[in-house]
Amino acid sequence: MNFELDEAIEVMERTPKALTLFLSGLSAGWLQGNEGEGTWNATEVIDHLIEAEKTNWIPRLNTILQDGENKPFPPFDRFAHLNDKTAATIEEKLLAFQQIRTVNLAYIRSVIDPAQHFERTGRHPAFGLVKVRELLATWVVHDLTHMAQIVRVMAERYRVDVGPWSEYLGILKK
Amino acid sequence: MNFELDEAIEVMERTPKALTLFLSGLSAGWLQGNEGEGTWNATEVIDHLIEAEKTNWIPRLNTILQDGENKPFPPFDRFAHLNDKTAATIEEKLLAFQQIRTVNLAYIRSVIDPAQHFERTGRHPAFGLVKVRELLATWVVHDLTHMAQIVRVMAERYRVDVGPWSEYLGILKK
Repeated sequence: MNFELDEAIEVMERTPKALTLFLSGLSAGWLQGNEGEGTWNATEVIDHLIEAEKTNWIPRLNTILQDGENKPFPPFDRFAHLNDKTAATIEEKLLAFQQIRTVNLAYIRSVIDPAQHFERTGRHPAFGLVKVRELLATWVVHDLTHMAQIVRVMAERYRVDVGPWSEYLGILKK
Repeated sequence: MNFELDEAIEVMERTPKALTLFLSGLSAGWLQGNEGEGTWNATEVIDHLIEAEKTNWIPRLNTILQDGENKPFPPFDRFAHLNDKTAATIEEKLLAFQQIRTVNLAYIRSVIDPAQHFERTGRHPAFGLVKVRELLATWVVHDLTHMAQIVRVMAERYRVDVGPWSEYLGILKK
C-alpha cells in the first residue's frame, strides 16, 4: 500500500496544469488525430476527463460516504463526452478541467478524514465491494492513463515519419 | 507523411515545460519509484532526456549535414545518464532540460531549411540510411515515449492500491 491522500493530491492538482501547458496552442493536427475508427483524439480525452470530474468520482465518493454498500454507484457513461458538440476551444476545455478539478480537490480535502473514511466500502456495479482509498487511487491512475493516451495518440501521427526508428520507439508498439 | 518542422517544434518546446510543471515539487515516492530491477524512475528519465539533447540529436544531425552517408553517427550511450551521480534536484534537472532544449531548437531553426535538408541522408549504425526528417520526427516521438514512460512508472506505484479497478486501467496492463 502506497496510497496517501496528500501525495495523491500532488498529482491530481498537477494534471490539468501540465496538460494545459502541453496542449494549449497546438496545431489542429496534434489535437484532432486519433488512433483510428472509434478511438479518441487528445481533445476528446480532455472532454472525458471533465465528464469524469462531474459525474464519476465525486458522485461515487458521496454514494459511499452517505449510503455505504446499500446503494450501487450512480451510472457513469464513459462515452457521454462524445455527445458534447460545443464549439469550445481546447484552451477553454483545459480551463474548465482545471476549474472543476480545483473545486473537487477542495471538496475531498474538506470531507475526507483518512482514518475515518479510507476503509469505508461501496458497491461497484461490476466489481462489488470497493473502498474509498481504492476509488481515490483509481482517480490518480485514471489521470495517468489518459496522459499516456494523449501522448500515444500524438505519437501515432508520426508512425510513418520516423522511418526505421519505429523499432526503438516503445510508444509505437501496440 | 505528416511531418512539418513548425509542428514538430510546437511539441518539442512544450515537453520540458509540461514536465517541469508536472514533476517539480513532487514527493520522493513519485520521483524515485520505478518498474523493478533495471528500470528507470522519473528522475532518471529526465537525466536521459538531457543526455540525448547533449550527445544524440544534434551530433547526429550535424553528422548528416556535414558528412552525409560517409560517416557513421557518433556513438550515443543510452545508459550514460545512469552514471550521473550529481546531487542535482529534480527542479535543477528540469531547468537544465528546458535550457538545452531551447538552445537546440534555436539551432535547428537556424540551420535547417526543409526544402534543402529534409531528404539528406546519413548512416545509422543499426538501420543504415536515415533521413534528416526521420531524425527530427524521431526526436518528437522520443519525447512522447518518455512522457508516456514517466506517467506509467508513476502509475505503477498504485498498482495494488487501485484494487479491482486495475482491470479498467490500461496503463497497468503490461
